[in-house]
Amino acid sequence: MSNKPFTIGLAGLGTVGLGVVKVLEQNRNLIATKVGREIKLKAVSARNKNKVRGVNLDKYEWVDELLSLPDREDLDAVVEVIGGTEEPSKSLIEKAIKCRKHVVTANKALLAMHGHELATKAEYSQLSLRFEAAVAGGIPIIKALMEGLASNKITKISGVMNGTCNYILSRMEATNGSYEEIFSEAQNLGYVEADPSLDVGGIDAAQKLAILSSIAFQSEINFNDIEIEGIEQISLADIQNAKALGYRIKLIGTAELTTEGIYQGVQPCLVPKTSAISKLEGGTNMITIDSDFVGQTSFSGPGAGSGPTASAVVADLIDIAQGKKMPVFGLKVNSLKKFKKGNLGVNRCYYIRLSLVDRPGALAKVATILGKNQVSIDRMRQTAHDGDEAPLLIVTHKIMRPNLNHALSQIENLDVCLSPPVALRIEEI
Amino acid sequence: MSNKPFTIGLAGLGTVGLGVVKVLEQNRNLIATKVGREIKLKAVSARNKNKVRGVNLDKYEWVDELLSLPDREDLDAVVEVIGGTEEPSKSLIEKAIKCRKHVVTANKALLAMHGHELATKAEYSQLSLRFEAAVAGGIPIIKALMEGLASNKITKISGVMNGTCNYILSRMEATNGSYEEIFSEAQNLGYVEADPSLDVGGIDAAQKLAILSSIAFQSEINFNDIEIEGIEQISLADIQNAKALGYRIKLIGTAELTTEGIYQGVQPCLVPKTSAISKLEGGTNMITIDSDFVGQTSFSGPGAGSGPTASAVVADLIDIAQGKKMPVFGLKVNSLKKFKKGNLGVNRCYYIRLSLVDRPGALAKVATILGKNQVSIDRMRQTAHDGDEAPLLIVTHKIMRPNLNHALSQIENLDVCLSPPVALRIEEI
Repeated sequence: MSNKPFTIGLAGLGTVGLGVVKVLEQNRNLIATKVGREIKLKAVSARNKNKVRGVNLDKYEWVDELLSLPDREDLDAVVEVIGGTEEPSKSLIEKAIKCRKHVVTANKALLAMHGHELATKAEYSQLSLRFEAAVAGGIPIIKALMEGLASNKITKISGVMNGTCNYILSRMEATNGSYEEIFSEAQNLGYVEADPSLDVGGIDAAQKLAILSSIAFQSEINFNDIEIEGIEQISLADIQNAKALGYRIKLIGTAELTTEGIYQGVQPCLVPKTSAISKLEGGTNMITIDSDFVGQTSFSGPGAGSGPTASAVVADLIDIAQGKKMPVFGLKVNSLKKFKKGNLGVNRCYYIRLSLVDRPGALAKVATILGKNQVSIDRMRQTAHDGDEAPLLIVTHKIMRPNLNHALSQIENLDVCLSPPVALRIEEI
Repeated sequence: MSNKPFTIGLAGLGTVGLGVVKVLEQNRNLIATKVGREIKLKAVSARNKNKVRGVNLDKYEWVDELLSLPDREDLDAVVEVIGGTEEPSKSLIEKAIKCRKHVVTANKALLAMHGHELATKAEYSQLSLRFEAAVAGGIPIIKALMEGLASNKITKISGVMNGTCNYILSRMEATNGSYEEIFSEAQNLGYVEADPSLDVGGIDAAQKLAILSSIAFQSEINFNDIEIEGIEQISLADIQNAKALGYRIKLIGTAELTTEGIYQGVQPCLVPKTSAISKLEGGTNMITIDSDFVGQTSFSGPGAGSGPTASAVVADLIDIAQGKKMPVFGLKVNSLKKFKKGNLGVNRCYYIRLSLVDRPGALAKVATILGKNQVSIDRMRQTAHDGDEAPLLIVTHKIMRPNLNHALSQIENLDVCLSPPVALRIEEI
């Protein structure tokens, strides 16, 4: 291994990009001693040179034209932390590979949609494409899955992967606030992406899940087959009901090996109040992995933010500078299995909230439909109410989700049903 | 990188050794696909060839003379999982290095005492010496510290690193059993090492802490300066008192960067009942790391057992087989700092239990001594008692431990003090 500096160009000077500058400056000696050579930032590029950033960038060369950054012959690697949308990130990474630069990116959206294509290109050119920062910044989860647990057959990944949803759900419970109130609060605090559906719609968590799932199950990355439900339909009543039953509601990403293939889902779920995952507050992420020889391990830490995400970017740079080579998703692209979608079996209970007309026979109609669809009831409760609307709460035994969906679509069409039923999975994590 | 098999010799066929055999057999294809070459067990050695082990070892060559295992020219690496004492492990590893074999070991005791010497030898010969399995088997914590968090300045490590102590303390609380009763129960269940002081005396946890601390703080490994207290003096009263105050007692290993150097301690501590660490049951370990850019991350999973420990051994073999090279403790031995012991500052509260003669003026004497030593009291309680012995419970404000020690040694000499004071640190993890 050479001991001349490992040189990088940085594309993107937002929160994460400036974090990378700070990590490399503040811990320069520490990093150089570990790697055996300096990691040297040479050039930076972002949309607006004149933006006030609070960090002195004078010692780095400014590149006006983003896509010309990889052309520089003095760079070993390009860091892409532009984030957000697919372009110009995708073109930049493709250009970098073409120019024979290693790439480190934090762009989960890009990887979720084009990861396989980019991995194929990087592998063909024998270059590293690394993305520890794309999932749960402060938790070295990619490394844990790809290397630390490499000798295991992984059977399940689950966890909380989006801090904004976690904040909203926790605050609703703590303040008895409505979804709309707390969503506005989170937005005012700057916690919500410009396109809120990325957070509260579950997209961000699903992008992360797709990445973890590909590595865990040695399968081509697949975002499109993830079942995604956001938290927009969660009412304060659901949160209070869950609490009364001994649960809290969290947005859970789950990927698991089933008999047919791989099930991937992001949904608000009830988790036991006593579980570690139910205690997560704010931006803390937690990911739990089940595997054949280890059993269960859990990793928790900050999921986002400048420092944690930048730390992950620099960890990847350190690996590359030390000459460590890894296939992009843990296996050579030709060895990755074609993605095959699996379904959850008869292994979960569900929470159901219905709003019925307060009229004799209403409950009988609902119960009949549930029974015909093999949805067996563990607990049922009609809560106190004013007026003509009777809120009905049901906890099922372990059932098949398709049966439940079928039953709920029939119930929704009943004249006694006043609003669309809410059904949430119970995850005994 | 070559694609011919990476060949290993296995020394030790106890729980962990047989686990390694099973992992390599059961996940052979998975591992070969990831590595790009097979990891092939060629030869095994243990004390007794004829012992019934329940695993068919016929396809591996048996080596009678342990120390001749590294002589074999058909081996790339030697796995040392003999465990327990220092010999023959130390001689075996030295011989393996001499014979130019990479080494993977699970031997924390050996590393804690001779890690620097062995690292120097391995480095000189440009060989890998890896030991993920030596600390918290199921948690890839060495990799997380050495690589995942490599860009951070680490300021603190703390956690539960011994399952036996955790079992005993949890069971005492759950059953209201005395230390002696539950210790016997644990011993009958086979949870306690042949030399119990390794577990209940805190030695095992301290060996693990020494390893983590060296990597985290880039310092030569130092076991001898660890302050170690076991759990033998914890009474049921302490556990109940802690509970009433909102805490649970856990054996906590802590290493932290202080102004003078590195503080390392293993002691029973009070941790908040609401913290994730307080919920740990049985053999689950949990390690929390504080660092400058990431903040706090936590890792939990099984700390011991055949599968988890073997998984870690094989993860190390995979890294070596893939050609990944790492200095033994994360830095070249010459770059490691000389160990310098630090002390805890004024940053912890303490729980104190005293047993006083029930006589006017006893309390005044104690309070005077505490006051003179700058030990300021947050809460104090004299609990109900029969007879002449008055149990006194004190929670201090944040104080200096040496002041407390000074006060306690004076209190112990008072004629009103009936038994040695118990003082436990409160860790707000």
